[in-house]
Amino acid sequence: MDLDLVGQLSTPNDTKILLVVIDGLGGLANPRTGRSELEVADTPQLDRLAQESACGMTIPVGYGITPGSGPGHLALFGYDPLRYTVGRGVLESLGIDFDLKPKDVAARGNFCTLDDEGRITDRRAGRIATELTLPLCEALREIELPGVQLFVEPVRDYRFVLVLRPKGRKRLSGEVRDTDPQKEGVTPLPPEPLAPEAKATAEVVAKFLAGAAEKLRGREPANGLMLRGFATIPELPNMPETFNLRAGAVAAYPMYRGLAKLAGMTVLATGETFDDEIETVQAHWDEFDFMFVHYKPADAAGEDGDFKAKVAAFESFDAAVPKLRALGADVLMIAGDHSTPAVLGTHSWHSVPFLLQSKWARQDEVRGFNERQCVHGSLGTFPASEVLPLAMAHTGRFAKYGA
Amino acid sequence: MDLDLVGQLSTPNDTKILLVVIDGLGGLANPRTGRSELEVADTPQLDRLAQESACGMTIPVGYGITPGSGPGHLALFGYDPLRYTVGRGVLESLGIDFDLKPKDVAARGNFCTLDDEGRITDRRAGRIATELTLPLCEALREIELPGVQLFVEPVRDYRFVLVLRPKGRKRLSGEVRDTDPQKEGVTPLPPEPLAPEAKATAEVVAKFLAGAAEKLRGREPANGLMLRGFATIPELPNMPETFNLRAGAVAAYPMYRGLAKLAGMTVLATGETFDDEIETVQAHWDEFDFMFVHYKPADAAGEDGDFKAKVAAFESFDAAVPKLRALGADVLMIAGDHSTPAVLGTHSWHSVPFLLQSKWARQDEVRGFNERQCVHGSLGTFPASEVLPLAMAHTGRFAKYGA
Repeated sequence: MDLDLVGQLSTPNDTKILLVVIDGLGGLANPRTGRSELEVADTPQLDRLAQESACGMTIPVGYGITPGSGPGHLALFGYDPLRYTVGRGVLESLGIDFDLKPKDVAARGNFCTLDDEGRITDRRAGRIATELTLPLCEALREIELPGVQLFVEPVRDYRFVLVLRPKGRKRLSGEVRDTDPQKEGVTPLPPEPLAPEAKATAEVVAKFLAGAAEKLRGREPANGLMLRGFATIPELPNMPETFNLRAGAVAAYPMYRGLAKLAGMTVLATGETFDDEIETVQAHWDEFDFMFVHYKPADAAGEDGDFKAKVAAFESFDAAVPKLRALGADVLMIAGDHSTPAVLGTHSWHSVPFLLQSKWARQDEVRGFNERQCVHGSLGTFPASEVLPLAMAHTGRFAKYGA
Repeated sequence: MDLDLVGQLSTPNDTKILLVVIDGLGGLANPRTGRSELEVADTPQLDRLAQESACGMTIPVGYGITPGSGPGHLALFGYDPLRYTVGRGVLESLGIDFDLKPKDVAARGNFCTLDDEGRITDRRAGRIATELTLPLCEALREIELPGVQLFVEPVRDYRFVLVLRPKGRKRLSGEVRDTDPQKEGVTPLPPEPLAPEAKATAEVVAKFLAGAAEKLRGREPANGLMLRGFATIPELPNMPETFNLRAGAVAAYPMYRGLAKLAGMTVLATGETFDDEIETVQAHWDEFDFMFVHYKPADAAGEDGDFKAKVAAFESFDAAVPKLRALGADVLMIAGDHSTPAVLGTHSWHSVPFLLQSKWARQDEVRGFNERQCVHGSLGTFPASEVLPLAMAHTGRFAKYGA
């Protein structure tokens, strides 16, 4: 829904909305059994909840579009994920809990290997382990850039984040072309400005690359680097203000905390397990009208292509459902940011099961929480960006539209 | 659908389309039985019709949006209800059959009570009966405004309509701020212009309010008034021209006649009952390609929170279905402008059952006309503004798009 309209219709009251996001929720049937991870999993609690709820299927971004974590979550936070985007550099920074500032420019880096002619021979430098990238990052931090403070932070394996922070009145832009040519056998590309205002930034990046060439020359196991996804923090409309909600976010993984923070939510410190997360939600229940809580294991199992582990992740989630219900939300929603079918081993474009429990949920015939059943739900198949408007309606937080 | 495209595709022929709108059609399950008004109602005729029809669920305006009568009907008349809107003052005027002219500015008024300091003590003046507002309206009509003719018409209870009609070359604007502060304990707000062109109008309203203060001073049972929803007639594309249809409208209630008139339909005089309406449709059947007929009792029962009365309203409608079928329309549609679940006692955002009977309707598995069944219909869940394009297609009135 258009956020201007959301702003016009939203009125506060004392109801509570709980949005539980199961990362990578949707799946596909195992060809041997014809049943998906959710269908195989023994989830009596989820199934009973589905029977009491209005169910449906969400389209995360659009038909055929496989979302990254950014758009998958922004849609569930009420944003049109095609209009509001988060650059790769920013997302990587969020993922390592880097405290990005509004004027920073961030980029994702790969350490790689170059031949004597400077041509890329391995885009991932043999997928070197994180501990091997630490000394490389330290070496790069010694580079001096005029008017710009430099951060080089390891992510995982061969990946790192470069953050350029302008000093004084200097201004930087994210409109710089990737230096990563996305193939081997060629040299990395020069950092060209993609807009006039990015000229100075491209020059700073070129200086960084010249310094990096010096620092990495002859080093093992990587002697080069590539940068992509130069970006600044996006200007997102503030979700709590737009929806007139006090919104809290609970996630064990930094990237999801970071996305919630971009949306303007209050991010709460929590532990590493889903039980920790639920305890955090419980402890802060009275402070918020809306709480987002994130469950990661289903996606991780799907990404690993581990069907059984994804089934187990759902069964483990199922055991926590009574605690989620006990919070007593006026609207309890179980949603997914995208599908991660174990048989694919990666995110996919498929629609995602959804349920909304509320006193005002429309009756339907869904008897179990899975892909095959939820498609028959009373909410039909609908854009994930409408999840939050539906929660607003079911809690009486949207005024009538038109006379 | 975009109305320019509608205009390009629409071609006349000698088919007939009948759109029957059951006001407030959609419902929710009674928590005690788990069944909705439509599911409880004994409606053999509607169920048989649904079996012969393509069924679906319509989204009146958008996910989570509870529509007023205006947007609910405009969507069924083919308009995007988020693009084309009808102001409150205009809708109230339509509701009392006031013959609003294109240059008129109309506002909805409340009689209220004020204390000695001019602060509102009761926004509805104790919900005074209509007969008590008549003398108040008469008193207000005596106010003289330079260059503007004044109408003050009672609506119901404490409600009235103010219409300002410019004389000669004077022009008025609806861009005037509500004087209704929507709360008690404060004074009504001054009528400020919301756009430069509304300055003169705001001054006229201020003069009216000064006159009203004088006329109402010390009166019982109301000594003040508040105005809101200043508006002029919206410029809607003409529906009969756009769709290339001779369109007639039959409704016992003035507001629905008024909305049809705004769309450019020919409004036919009719009686007070649904039988009267059907007779009117029958009498004018040969004159039109498209006829809209409105059935009010379901919404009225829903608004009253009277589940049984809504069930009875459907059973009463069911008895009239054979007469509707006997008209022999090429496309017969049963639609709703929005849901009015009795358990909510008010309009709601929920989707609405829909059926389209036609020789070319796609078969589906729907066996009864209700929320639980229609969600499985061959039309799926779709925007109400696509109802009319679907009727055009099923009557062969839309040309092929593209080569």
